[in-house]
Amino acid sequence: MNLIMLFEEDFLAPGRVRLEGRRFSHVSSVHRAALGDSLTVGILNGRMGVGIVTRLDQDALELDVRLDQDPPPKLPLTLILALPRPKVLNRALAAATSLGVARIVLLNAWKVEKSYWKSPRLTQENLMRQQVLGLEQAKDTMLPELRLVRFFRSFVEDELPFLVKDTLALVAHPGSTGPCPRCVSKPTTLAIGPEGGWLDAEVQSLINAGFQPIDLGPRILRVETAVATLVGRIF
Amino acid sequence: MNLIMLFEEDFLAPGRVRLEGRRFSHVSSVHRAALGDSLTVGILNGRMGVGIVTRLDQDALELDVRLDQDPPPKLPLTLILALPRPKVLNRALAAATSLGVARIVLLNAWKVEKSYWKSPRLTQENLMRQQVLGLEQAKDTMLPELRLVRFFRSFVEDELPFLVKDTLALVAHPGSTGPCPRCVSKPTTLAIGPEGGWLDAEVQSLINAGFQPIDLGPRILRVETAVATLVGRIF
Repeated sequence: MNLIMLFEEDFLAPGRVRLEGRRFSHVSSVHRAALGDSLTVGILNGRMGVGIVTRLDQDALELDVRLDQDPPPKLPLTLILALPRPKVLNRALAAATSLGVARIVLLNAWKVEKSYWKSPRLTQENLMRQQVLGLEQAKDTMLPELRLVRFFRSFVEDELPFLVKDTLALVAHPGSTGPCPRCVSKPTTLAIGPEGGWLDAEVQSLINAGFQPIDLGPRILRVETAVATLVGRIF
Repeated sequence: MNLIMLFEEDFLAPGRVRLEGRRFSHVSSVHRAALGDSLTVGILNGRMGVGIVTRLDQDALELDVRLDQDPPPKLPLTLILALPRPKVLNRALAAATSLGVARIVLLNAWKVEKSYWKSPRLTQENLMRQQVLGLEQAKDTMLPELRLVRFFRSFVEDELPFLVKDTLALVAHPGSTGPCPRCVSKPTTLAIGPEGGWLDAEVQSLINAGFQPIDLGPRILRVETAVATLVGRIF
Protein backbone atom coordinates (compact mmCIF):
# COMPACT_ATOMS: atom_id res chain seq x y z
CA MET A 1 0.00 0.00 0.00
CA ASN A 2 2.08 2.89 -1.32
CA LEU A 3 -0.94 5.17 -1.22
CA ILE A 4 -3.85 5.04 1.19
CA MET A 5 -7.06 5.33 -0.77
CA LEU A 6 -9.68 7.64 0.68
CA PHE A 7 -13.40 7.60 -0.06
CA GLU A 8 -15.96 10.37 0.38
CA GLU A 9 -17.42 8.61 3.42
CA ASP A 10 -14.08 8.71 5.27
CA PHE A 11 -14.29 12.48 5.66
CA LEU A 12 -15.31 13.81 9.07
CA ALA A 13 -14.91 17.35 7.80
CA PRO A 14 -13.18 18.94 4.82
CA GLY A 15 -9.51 17.91 5.04
CA ARG A 16 -10.02 15.50 7.92
CA VAL A 17 -10.54 11.73 7.56
CA ARG A 18 -10.99 8.79 9.90
CA LEU A 19 -9.77 5.31 8.88
CA GLU A 20 -10.77 1.96 10.35
CA GLY A 21 -10.53 -1.67 9.26
CA ARG A 22 -8.10 -2.73 6.54
CA ARG A 23 -6.47 0.63 6.01
CA PHE A 24 -6.08 1.31 9.72
CA SER A 25 -4.55 -2.16 10.27
CA HIS A 26 -2.14 -1.68 7.40
CA VAL A 27 -1.07 1.78 8.47
CA SER A 28 -0.52 0.73 12.06
CA SER A 29 1.10 -2.67 11.49
CA VAL A 30 3.05 -2.18 8.25
CA HIS A 31 3.76 1.56 8.16
CA ARG A 32 3.89 1.54 11.97
CA ALA A 33 2.63 5.09 11.81
CA ALA A 34 2.87 7.38 14.84
CA LEU A 35 1.26 10.72 15.63
CA GLY A 36 2.58 13.41 13.32
CA ASP A 37 3.71 10.96 10.62
CA SER A 38 3.03 11.84 7.05
CA LEU A 39 1.45 9.30 4.67
CA THR A 40 0.72 9.34 0.95
CA VAL A 41 -3.03 9.48 0.39
CA GLY A 42 -5.41 10.02 -2.49
CA ILE A 43 -9.12 10.22 -3.01
CA LEU A 44 -10.70 7.69 -5.31
CA ASN A 45 -10.95 9.17 -8.80
CA GLY A 46 -9.52 12.41 -7.46
CA ARG A 47 -6.35 14.11 -6.34
CA MET A 48 -3.46 12.81 -4.27
CA GLY A 49 -1.38 14.32 -1.49
CA VAL A 50 -0.32 13.74 2.10
CA GLY A 51 -2.13 12.93 5.30
CA ILE A 52 -0.67 13.78 8.72
CA VAL A 53 -1.65 11.42 11.55
CA THR A 54 -3.48 13.60 14.09
CA ARG A 55 -5.10 10.92 16.21
CA LEU A 56 -4.31 7.28 16.82
CA ASP A 57 -6.77 5.07 18.68
CA GLN A 58 -6.88 1.32 19.24
CA ASP A 59 -8.96 0.67 16.15
CA ALA A 60 -8.94 3.86 14.10
CA LEU A 61 -6.82 6.83 13.19
CA GLU A 62 -7.44 10.33 11.92
CA LEU A 63 -5.52 12.22 9.30
CA ASP A 64 -5.36 15.85 8.23
CA VAL A 65 -5.10 15.60 4.48
CA ARG A 66 -3.94 17.97 1.79
CA LEU A 67 -4.71 16.82 -1.75
CA ASP A 68 -2.61 18.95 -4.06
CA GLN A 69 -1.21 16.54 -6.64
CA ASP A 70 -2.60 15.02 -9.79
CA PRO A 71 -2.49 11.25 -10.19
CA PRO A 72 -0.04 9.87 -12.77
CA PRO A 73 -1.27 9.70 -16.37
CA LYS A 74 -2.84 6.48 -17.59
CA LEU A 75 -1.43 4.48 -20.48
CA PRO A 76 -3.50 5.06 -23.62
CA LEU A 77 -4.34 1.38 -23.58
CA THR A 78 -7.56 -0.59 -23.77
CA LEU A 79 -6.91 -4.13 -22.59
CA ILE A 80 -9.32 -6.80 -23.78
CA LEU A 81 -8.83 -9.89 -21.66
CA ALA A 82 -10.63 -13.15 -22.18
CA LEU A 83 -12.12 -13.63 -18.71
CA PRO A 84 -9.41 -15.41 -16.69
CA ARG A 85 -10.29 -18.18 -14.27
CA PRO A 86 -11.31 -16.80 -10.90
CA LYS A 87 -8.04 -17.64 -9.15
CA VAL A 88 -6.16 -15.57 -11.71
CA LEU A 89 -8.70 -12.76 -12.14
CA ASN A 90 -7.81 -10.83 -8.99
CA ARG A 91 -4.10 -10.75 -9.71
CA ALA A 92 -4.61 -9.88 -13.37
CA LEU A 93 -6.98 -7.04 -12.57
CA ALA A 94 -4.78 -5.57 -9.85
CA ALA A 95 -1.69 -5.88 -12.05
CA ALA A 96 -3.33 -4.23 -15.07
CA THR A 97 -4.62 -1.43 -12.84
CA SER A 98 -1.21 -0.89 -11.26
CA LEU A 99 0.36 -0.66 -14.72
CA GLY A 100 -1.97 2.23 -15.56
CA VAL A 101 -4.19 0.56 -18.15
CA ALA A 102 -6.97 3.05 -18.95
CA ARG A 103 -9.75 0.64 -19.93
CA ILE A 104 -10.23 -3.07 -19.27
CA VAL A 105 -12.77 -5.29 -21.00
CA LEU A 106 -13.31 -8.79 -19.62
CA LEU A 107 -14.61 -10.70 -22.62
CA ASN A 108 -16.04 -14.12 -23.15
CA ALA A 109 -14.30 -16.55 -25.51
CA TRP A 110 -14.82 -20.16 -26.52
CA LYS A 111 -12.24 -21.46 -24.07
CA VAL A 112 -13.51 -19.41 -21.13
CA GLU A 113 -15.36 -21.91 -18.95
CA LYS A 114 -18.99 -20.90 -18.40
CA SER A 115 -18.59 -21.33 -14.64
CA TYR A 116 -16.11 -18.43 -14.54
CA TRP A 117 -18.98 -16.04 -15.21
CA LYS A 118 -20.70 -17.20 -12.03
CA SER A 119 -17.70 -16.66 -9.78
CA PRO A 120 -18.27 -14.48 -6.70
CA ARG A 121 -15.09 -12.69 -7.78
CA LEU A 122 -17.13 -11.01 -10.50
CA THR A 123 -19.21 -9.04 -8.01
CA GLN A 124 -18.93 -5.29 -8.38
CA GLU A 125 -17.52 -5.20 -4.86
CA ASN A 126 -14.65 -7.59 -5.53
CA LEU A 127 -13.77 -6.08 -8.90
CA MET A 128 -13.58 -2.64 -7.29
CA ARG A 129 -11.48 -4.01 -4.41
CA GLN A 130 -8.90 -5.50 -6.79
CA GLN A 131 -8.70 -2.28 -8.74
CA VAL A 132 -8.25 -0.26 -5.55
CA LEU A 133 -5.44 -2.64 -4.48
CA GLY A 134 -3.75 -2.01 -7.83
CA LEU A 135 -4.13 1.76 -7.43
CA GLU A 136 -2.79 1.70 -3.87
CA GLN A 137 0.20 -0.31 -5.07
CA ALA A 138 0.99 2.07 -7.93
CA LYS A 139 0.23 5.40 -6.20
CA ASP A 140 -2.69 6.22 -8.44
CA THR A 141 -6.31 7.14 -7.73
CA MET A 142 -8.10 6.83 -11.08
CA LEU A 143 -10.09 3.63 -11.54
CA PRO A 144 -9.73 2.16 -15.01
CA GLU A 145 -12.99 1.84 -16.91
CA LEU A 146 -14.05 -1.77 -16.54
CA ARG A 147 -16.59 -3.65 -18.64
CA LEU A 148 -17.77 -7.24 -18.57
CA VAL A 149 -18.85 -8.51 -21.97
CA ARG A 150 -20.61 -11.86 -22.17
CA PHE A 151 -21.18 -11.99 -25.92
CA PHE A 152 -18.01 -12.25 -27.96
CA ARG A 153 -19.60 -12.11 -31.35
CA SER A 154 -21.82 -9.07 -31.08
CA PHE A 155 -19.08 -7.17 -29.25
CA VAL A 156 -16.33 -8.02 -31.72
CA GLU A 157 -18.45 -7.62 -34.83
CA ASP A 158 -20.62 -4.65 -33.94
CA GLU A 159 -18.81 -2.59 -31.32
CA LEU A 160 -15.13 -3.29 -31.60
CA PRO A 161 -14.55 -1.89 -35.12
CA PHE A 162 -15.63 1.51 -33.75
CA LEU A 163 -13.74 1.18 -30.48
CA VAL A 164 -10.42 0.37 -32.16
CA LYS A 165 -10.72 3.05 -34.82
CA ASP A 166 -7.57 5.23 -34.79
CA THR A 167 -5.88 2.93 -32.30
CA LEU A 168 -3.15 0.37 -32.87
CA ALA A 169 -5.07 -2.86 -32.33
CA LEU A 170 -3.08 -5.97 -31.45
CA VAL A 171 -4.14 -9.49 -30.62
CA ALA A 172 -1.62 -11.77 -28.93
CA HIS A 173 -1.73 -15.14 -30.67
CA PRO A 174 1.07 -17.72 -30.61
CA GLY A 175 2.25 -18.65 -34.06
CA SER A 176 1.37 -15.34 -35.71
CA THR A 177 4.04 -13.92 -37.92
CA GLY A 178 3.87 -10.31 -36.77
CA PRO A 179 6.45 -9.13 -34.26
CA CYS A 180 5.27 -6.96 -31.41
CA PRO A 181 5.54 -3.21 -32.10
CA ARG A 182 7.61 -1.21 -29.64
CA CYS A 183 7.74 2.28 -28.21
CA VAL A 184 4.23 3.06 -29.40
CA SER A 185 2.85 6.43 -28.41
CA LYS A 186 -0.57 6.22 -30.05
CA PRO A 187 -3.67 4.79 -28.38
CA THR A 188 -3.53 1.03 -28.39
CA THR A 189 -6.00 -1.82 -27.99
CA LEU A 190 -4.53 -5.14 -26.90
CA ALA A 191 -6.45 -8.41 -26.82
CA ILE A 192 -5.14 -11.36 -24.80
CA GLY A 193 -6.80 -14.76 -25.03
CA PRO A 194 -7.81 -17.35 -22.43
CA GLU A 195 -5.49 -20.01 -21.03
CA GLY A 196 -6.20 -22.40 -23.89
CA GLY A 197 -5.77 -19.60 -26.45
CA TRP A 198 -8.19 -17.99 -28.90
CA LEU A 199 -9.84 -20.16 -31.53
CA ASP A 200 -8.58 -19.41 -35.01
CA ALA A 201 -12.09 -18.19 -35.82
CA GLU A 202 -11.92 -15.76 -32.90
CA VAL A 203 -8.58 -14.39 -34.09
CA GLN A 204 -10.10 -14.01 -37.55
CA SER A 205 -13.02 -12.05 -36.11
CA LEU A 206 -10.57 -9.77 -34.33
CA ILE A 207 -8.57 -9.32 -37.54
CA ASN A 208 -11.81 -8.42 -39.32
CA ALA A 209 -12.43 -5.84 -36.61
CA GLY A 210 -9.07 -4.22 -37.34
CA PHE A 211 -6.60 -6.13 -35.15
CA GLN A 212 -3.18 -7.38 -36.19
CA PRO A 213 -1.96 -10.63 -34.64
CA ILE A 214 1.36 -10.58 -32.81
CA ASP A 215 3.46 -13.44 -31.53
CA LEU A 216 5.25 -13.31 -28.21
CA GLY A 217 7.70 -16.14 -28.76
CA PRO A 218 7.64 -19.75 -27.64
CA ARG A 219 7.04 -19.12 -23.93
CA ILE A 220 3.50 -19.26 -22.63
CA LEU A 221 3.06 -16.74 -19.85
CA ARG A 222 0.46 -16.38 -17.15
CA VAL A 223 -2.00 -13.68 -18.07
CA GLU A 224 -0.72 -11.15 -15.53
CA THR A 225 2.87 -11.76 -16.64
CA ALA A 226 1.87 -11.45 -20.29
CA VAL A 227 0.05 -8.16 -19.64
CA ALA A 228 3.06 -6.66 -17.86
CA THR A 229 5.53 -7.88 -20.49
CA LEU A 230 3.42 -6.48 -23.31
CA VAL A 231 2.93 -3.15 -21.57
CA GLY A 232 6.70 -2.94 -21.06
CA ARG A 233 7.33 -3.78 -24.69
CA ILE A 234 4.68 -1.65 -26.37
CA PHE A 235 4.96 1.60 -24.40
CA MET B 1 0.92 -26.70 -16.80
CA ASN B 2 1.73 -26.33 -20.48
CA LEU B 3 4.50 -28.89 -20.19
CA ILE B 4 4.68 -31.84 -17.83
CA MET B 5 8.08 -31.91 -16.21
CA LEU B 6 9.74 -35.29 -15.97
CA PHE B 7 12.53 -36.30 -13.62
CA GLU B 8 15.01 -39.16 -13.91
CA GLU B 9 13.18 -41.12 -11.22
CA ASP B 10 9.93 -41.12 -13.24
CA PHE B 11 11.42 -43.47 -15.83
CA LEU B 12 10.37 -47.12 -15.65
CA ALA B 13 12.45 -47.86 -18.72
CA PRO B 14 14.03 -45.74 -21.46
CA GLY B 15 11.18 -43.81 -23.08
CA ARG B 16 8.56 -44.90 -20.54
CA VAL B 17 7.51 -42.89 -17.47
CA ARG B 18 5.00 -43.29 -14.67
CA LEU B 19 3.43 -40.22 -13.05
CA GLU B 20 1.63 -40.00 -9.71
CA GLY B 21 0.66 -37.19 -7.34
CA ARG B 22 0.51 -33.58 -8.52
CA ARG B 23 1.26 -34.23 -12.17
CA PHE B 24 -1.14 -37.16 -12.40
CA SER B 25 -3.92 -35.12 -10.77
CA HIS B 26 -3.32 -32.21 -13.11
CA VAL B 27 -3.22 -34.35 -16.23
CA SER B 28 -6.37 -36.23 -15.29
CA SER B 29 -8.45 -33.35 -13.92
CA VAL B 30 -7.32 -30.37 -16.02
CA HIS B 31 -6.10 -31.94 -19.27
CA ARG B 32 -8.70 -34.71 -18.79
CA ALA B 33 -6.31 -36.97 -20.63
CA ALA B 34 -7.46 -40.29 -22.05
CA LEU B 35 -5.55 -43.30 -23.36
CA GLY B 36 -3.72 -42.42 -26.54
CA ASP B 37 -3.68 -38.68 -25.84
CA SER B 38 -0.55 -36.78 -26.56
CA LEU B 39 0.91 -34.37 -23.97
CA THR B 40 3.82 -31.94 -24.06
CA VAL B 41 6.57 -33.20 -21.77
CA GLY B 42 10.17 -32.36 -21.01
CA ILE B 43 12.92 -33.67 -18.78
CA LEU B 44 14.32 -31.30 -16.19
CA ASN B 45 17.41 -29.60 -17.61
CA GLY B 46 17.01 -31.68 -20.76
CA ARG B 47 15.04 -32.05 -23.96
CA MET B 48 11.32 -31.67 -24.61
CA GLY B 49 8.87 -33.63 -26.70
CA VAL B 50 5.60 -35.53 -26.44
CA GLY B 51 4.27 -38.26 -24.21
CA ILE B 52 1.49 -40.61 -25.31
CA VAL B 53 -0.75 -41.89 -22.52
CA THR B 54 -0.37 -45.69 -22.59
CA ARG B 55 -1.90 -46.56 -19.23
CA LEU B 56 -4.35 -44.77 -16.97
CA ASP B 57 -4.98 -46.04 -13.45
CA GLN B 58 -6.87 -44.55 -10.52
CA ASP B 59 -3.83 -42.82 -9.10
CA ALA B 60 -1.15 -42.96 -11.78
CA LEU B 61 -0.58 -42.93 -15.49
CA GLU B 62 2.12 -44.06 -17.85
CA LEU B 63 3.46 -42.29 -20.90
CA ASP B 64 5.62 -43.32 -23.83
CA VAL B 65 7.80 -40.29 -24.35
CA ARG B 66 9.86 -39.03 -27.25
CA LEU B 67 12.18 -36.14 -26.39
CA ASP B 68 13.32 -34.66 -29.66
CA GLN B 69 13.09 -30.88 -29.18
CA ASP B 70 15.38 -28.36 -27.59
CA PRO B 71 13.95 -26.06 -24.91
CA PRO B 72 13.54 -22.38 -25.88
CA PRO B 73 16.61 -20.16 -25.44
CA LYS B 74 17.01 -18.25 -22.20
CA LEU B 75 17.17 -14.47 -22.06
CA PRO B 76 20.77 -13.33 -21.56
CA LEU B 77 19.68 -11.81 -18.27
CA THR B 78 20.95 -12.01 -14.72
CA LEU B 79 18.27 -10.76 -12.37
CA ILE B 80 19.42 -9.53 -8.98
CA LEU B 81 16.38 -9.30 -6.71
CA ALA B 82 16.45 -7.98 -3.19
CA LEU B 83 14.90 -10.95 -1.36
CA PRO B 84 11.12 -10.37 -1.53
CA ARG B 85 8.91 -11.09 1.43
CA PRO B 86 7.91 -14.75 1.55
CA LYS B 87 4.38 -14.20 0.26
CA VAL B 88 5.78 -12.58 -2.87
CA LEU B 89 8.83 -14.79 -3.34
CA ASN B 90 7.04 -17.76 -4.92
CA ARG B 91 5.24 -15.67 -7.51
CA ALA B 92 8.33 -13.63 -8.34
CA LEU B 93 10.49 -16.72 -8.76
CA ALA B 94 7.95 -18.55 -10.91
CA ALA B 95 7.36 -15.43 -13.04
CA ALA B 96 11.07 -14.77 -13.59
CA THR B 97 11.60 -18.41 -14.51
CA SER B 98 8.68 -18.41 -16.93
CA LEU B 99 10.08 -15.31 -18.62
CA GLY B 100 13.31 -17.17 -19.34
CA VAL B 101 15.67 -15.33 -17.00
CA ALA B 102 18.98 -17.23 -17.12
CA ARG B 103 20.32 -16.43 -13.66
CA ILE B 104 18.60 -15.20 -10.50
CA VAL B 105 20.36 -13.86 -7.44
CA LEU B 106 18.29 -13.28 -4.29
CA LEU B 107 20.27 -10.64 -2.45
CA ASN B 108 20.05 -9.08 0.97
CA ALA B 109 19.47 -5.32 1.27
CA TRP B 110 18.92 -2.92 4.15
CA LYS B 111 15.15 -2.95 3.76
CA VAL B 112 14.89 -6.74 3.50
CA GLU B 113 13.54 -7.86 6.86
CA LYS B 114 15.86 -10.33 8.57
CA SER B 115 12.96 -12.72 9.16
CA TYR B 116 12.59 -13.24 5.40
CA TRP B 117 15.83 -15.22 5.41
CA LYS B 118 14.32 -17.70 7.86
CA SER B 119 11.20 -18.37 5.80
CA PRO B 120 10.47 -22.02 4.98
CA ARG B 121 9.95 -20.80 1.41
CA LEU B 122 13.72 -20.52 1.13
CA THR B 123 14.24 -24.27 1.38
CA GLN B 124 15.90 -25.82 -1.63
CA GLU B 125 12.76 -27.88 -2.13
CA ASN B 126 10.39 -24.91 -2.33
CA LEU B 127 12.71 -22.83 -4.50
CA MET B 128 12.99 -25.72 -6.94
CA ARG B 129 9.21 -26.25 -6.91
CA GLN B 130 8.54 -22.62 -7.84
CA GLN B 131 11.07 -22.76 -10.63
CA VAL B 132 9.56 -25.98 -11.97
CA LEU B 133 6.10 -24.33 -11.91
CA GLY B 134 7.51 -21.45 -13.96
CA LEU B 135 9.10 -23.85 -16.44
CA GLU B 136 5.91 -25.91 -16.78
CA GLN B 137 3.98 -22.69 -17.44
CA ALA B 138 6.40 -21.46 -20.11
CA LYS B 139 7.15 -24.81 -21.83
CA ASP B 140 10.78 -24.83 -20.82
CA THR B 141 12.97 -27.37 -19.03
CA MET B 142 16.13 -25.51 -18.08
CA LEU B 143 16.30 -24.34 -14.48
CA PRO B 144 17.71 -20.86 -14.12
CA GLU B 145 20.86 -20.67 -12.00
CA LEU B 146 19.73 -19.52 -8.56
CA ARG B 147 21.90 -18.09 -5.81
CA LEU B 148 21.04 -16.77 -2.37
CA VAL B 149 23.41 -14.07 -1.18
CA ARG B 150 23.20 -12.93 2.43
CA PHE B 151 25.96 -10.33 2.37
CA PHE B 152 25.22 -7.33 0.19
CA ARG B 153 28.51 -5.57 0.66
CA SER B 154 31.00 -8.30 -0.09
CA PHE B 155 28.91 -9.47 -3.05
CA VAL B 156 28.46 -6.01 -4.55
CA GLU B 157 32.01 -4.81 -3.91
CA ASP B 158 34.03 -7.95 -4.55
CA GLU B 159 32.06 -10.18 -6.89
CA LEU B 160 29.66 -8.03 -8.83
CA PRO B 161 32.20 -5.91 -10.73
CA PHE B 162 33.43 -9.14 -12.37
CA LEU B 163 29.97 -10.60 -12.90
CA VAL B 164 28.67 -7.51 -14.71
CA LYS B 165 31.74 -7.08 -16.87
CA ASP B 166 30.71 -6.89 -20.55
CA THR B 167 27.02 -6.80 -19.61
CA LEU B 168 24.63 -3.89 -19.60
CA ALA B 169 24.08 -3.43 -15.86
CA LEU B 170 20.94 -1.61 -14.75
CA VAL B 171 19.54 -0.84 -11.33
CA ALA B 172 15.91 0.17 -11.06
CA HIS B 173 15.67 3.16 -8.73
CA PRO B 174 12.79 5.64 -8.66
CA GLY B 175 13.93 9.19 -9.23
CA SER B 176 16.97 8.32 -11.33
CA THR B 177 17.39 10.36 -14.45
CA GLY B 178 18.27 7.55 -16.84
CA PRO B 179 15.52 6.19 -19.04
CA CYS B 180 15.31 2.45 -19.49
CA PRO B 181 17.20 1.12 -22.53
CA ARG B 182 15.18 -0.87 -25.05
CA CYS B 183 15.65 -3.67 -27.52
CA VAL B 184 18.92 -4.69 -25.94
CA SER B 185 20.58 -7.76 -27.40
CA LYS B 186 23.68 -7.91 -25.23
CA PRO B 187 23.88 -9.73 -21.89
CA THR B 188 22.19 -7.71 -19.21
CA THR B 189 22.24 -7.59 -15.43
CA LEU B 190 19.21 -6.05 -13.78
CA ALA B 191 18.94 -5.22 -10.08
CA ILE B 192 15.53 -4.63 -8.48
CA GLY B 193 15.26 -3.40 -4.92
CA PRO B 194 13.08 -4.40 -1.96
CA GLU B 195 9.58 -3.08 -1.32
CA GLY B 196 10.88 -0.03 0.51
CA GLY B 197 13.50 0.59 -2.20
CA TRP B 198 17.29 0.57 -2.14
CA LEU B 199 19.13 2.93 0.19
CA ASP B 200 20.97 5.66 -1.69
CA ALA B 201 24.19 4.10 -0.39
CA GLU B 202 23.19 0.76 -1.89
CA VAL B 203 22.50 2.37 -5.25
CA GLN B 204 25.88 4.08 -5.03
CA SER B 205 27.58 0.73 -4.36
CA LEU B 206 25.86 -0.71 -7.41
CA ILE B 207 26.92 2.29 -9.50
CA ASN B 208 30.49 1.76 -8.29
CA ALA B 209 30.18 -1.87 -9.41
CA GLY B 210 29.28 -0.72 -12.93
CA PHE B 211 25.48 -0.29 -12.83
CA GLN B 212 23.52 2.59 -14.30
CA PRO B 213 20.35 3.65 -12.48
CA ILE B 214 17.13 3.69 -14.44
CA ASP B 215 13.76 5.14 -13.53
CA LEU B 216 10.51 3.37 -14.34
CA GLY B 217 8.14 6.29 -13.92
CA PRO B 218 5.89 7.30 -11.07
CA ARG B 219 4.11 3.96 -10.63
CA ILE B 220 5.39 1.57 -8.01
CA LEU B 221 4.91 -1.99 -9.20
CA ARG B 222 4.90 -5.28 -7.39
CA VAL B 223 8.18 -7.05 -7.89
CA GLU B 224 6.81 -9.71 -10.27
CA THR B 225 5.04 -7.04 -12.32
CA ALA B 226 8.19 -4.92 -12.41
CA VAL B 227 10.30 -7.89 -13.56
CA ALA B 228 7.89 -8.70 -16.40
CA THR B 229 7.57 -5.06 -17.49
CA LEU B 230 11.34 -4.60 -17.52
CA VAL B 231 11.92 -7.83 -19.43
CA GLY B 232 9.33 -6.69 -21.98
CA ARG B 233 10.98 -3.31 -22.28
CA ILE B 234 14.63 -4.29 -22.33
CA PHE B 235 14.58 -7.33 -24.66
